[in-house]
Amino acid sequence: MNEATSTSQQRHQPRSKKILVVCAHPEPRSLNAALTVFAVEHLRAAGHEVRVSDLYAMKWKATVDADDFSGHAADRRLRVMAASEQDTLSGRLSPDIAAEQEKVLWSDAVILQFPVWWFSAPAILKGWIDRVFTSGFAYGPALPPPYGDGVLAGRRALLSVTAGARGSAFSDRGVHGRLSDVLHPLQHGLFWFTGMAPLEPFAVYDANELPAERFAAAREAYARRLDGLFTDEPVPFRSLVGGDYGRDMRLLPGVEVPGTNGLDLHVGPRR
Amino acid sequence: MNEATSTSQQRHQPRSKKILVVCAHPEPRSLNAALTVFAVEHLRAAGHEVRVSDLYAMKWKATVDADDFSGHAADRRLRVMAASEQDTLSGRLSPDIAAEQEKVLWSDAVILQFPVWWFSAPAILKGWIDRVFTSGFAYGPALPPPYGDGVLAGRRALLSVTAGARGSAFSDRGVHGRLSDVLHPLQHGLFWFTGMAPLEPFAVYDANELPAERFAAAREAYARRLDGLFTDEPVPFRSLVGGDYGRDMRLLPGVEVPGTNGLDLHVGPRR
Repeated sequence: MNEATSTSQQRHQPRSKKILVVCAHPEPRSLNAALTVFAVEHLRAAGHEVRVSDLYAMKWKATVDADDFSGHAADRRLRVMAASEQDTLSGRLSPDIAAEQEKVLWSDAVILQFPVWWFSAPAILKGWIDRVFTSGFAYGPALPPPYGDGVLAGRRALLSVTAGARGSAFSDRGVHGRLSDVLHPLQHGLFWFTGMAPLEPFAVYDANELPAERFAAAREAYARRLDGLFTDEPVPFRSLVGGDYGRDMRLLPGVEVPGTNGLDLHVGPRR
Repeated sequence: MNEATSTSQQRHQPRSKKILVVCAHPEPRSLNAALTVFAVEHLRAAGHEVRVSDLYAMKWKATVDADDFSGHAADRRLRVMAASEQDTLSGRLSPDIAAEQEKVLWSDAVILQFPVWWFSAPAILKGWIDRVFTSGFAYGPALPPPYGDGVLAGRRALLSVTAGARGSAFSDRGVHGRLSDVLHPLQHGLFWFTGMAPLEPFAVYDANELPAERFAAAREAYARRLDGLFTDEPVPFRSLVGGDYGRDMRLLPGVEVPGTNGLDLHVGPRR
């Protein structure tokens, strides 16, 4: 697209963005499916382009194995990272993986919609992450450094989750751990590592039974989060190359917000 | 087994225990496979019984779907937790799931051996957790409460992981987050939730290339951890019913070790 076309499109639809929604629930009549449909309709009504990867409907292959790597000789020891990097750089990745990478690159924002199972993503979604975010695509020696400056920088990222537990159990002193800490491997480890700017997760709690009025309230709350997808302040995670970390990748002494420890060390001051 | 038989066996082999090792790596010549073989041999040499679930070799089905639930009518909305609870309680679970549940119940300790992919377990192992730890088996209304007093109490649990990163990046101030925080969903969310007593994880870092002398050192370090499987002090996570938490499942004010916050709130004082 040349600059003139781009400018012309921006004039007509100044806030039009591209959003990829990845959904991981086996039941098309589930709350997660309903929230996905709602997000798609709400974002399209706001003028955005939306694509959906419905992992169960796609029968997404969850497990990384040698079949993923056409460049790998069957009689040689499989080194997963090296094999995936080689196939990524030589354009030989399995077509289902390449198609998802294209969607991620196309997007201005990625939303992952899933039920919290055992305090993380369902296996099919973990398998989407394991297989799609290959070395050479999402990180790697020839790519920008991780954490903030990663190759997918410029994109927003939102986790939209449902949980059977009450919200208090995922609150700051809740027994399950604070939701943002429980989801650290996705918020910081996937999104921020690859350069995407994660927003605070959106959660519907007590979700095993959701009467109509609570579903309506959840939709309304989600609508506000979707409206802020490109304007809400992301979690201010620290940049690896911003001078906060030493060469050993540890936070330098005294950099932290006074009194913080644990995972909060990696969050800078909020505006 | 009657009491006399039990006592007789204990006399002959006073410390003999039963250990389940679950391994999740696609390559039989990998470091993870080598550590699994080493653990099996080391534990058997110490007089223990060991069973192995090699998930890739078993072609473990990673994804929870309607096929798992024979008691579920195809035309009805699938509620995953309710369907899995119903099939668990009526003995209709898929045979591959039932076989793994039997192994967990048989065990005195569970070891999960895996490469850290995207700061958590590979999808195939997440799928072992999602599918095996059903409601009615690992937790549920008719079972003891979670966190410490759960149905699998009395068992030890150990994560044995490999990571490409340097150890400093997973240390207390490391950019990835402290390893025990990153693994919180497994340590606290799976093990402690179901009543198992988790030990500090064992990790081999910088594991993409491991020269022979570092592999030998890793084996030696792992041997010491295996020797302490039933005697090392577990992480002193707090019990939900021990009086530390309120009815809203939040830690009561002032209970924490002074100065702690984040996930450390849920760890009691160390001896």
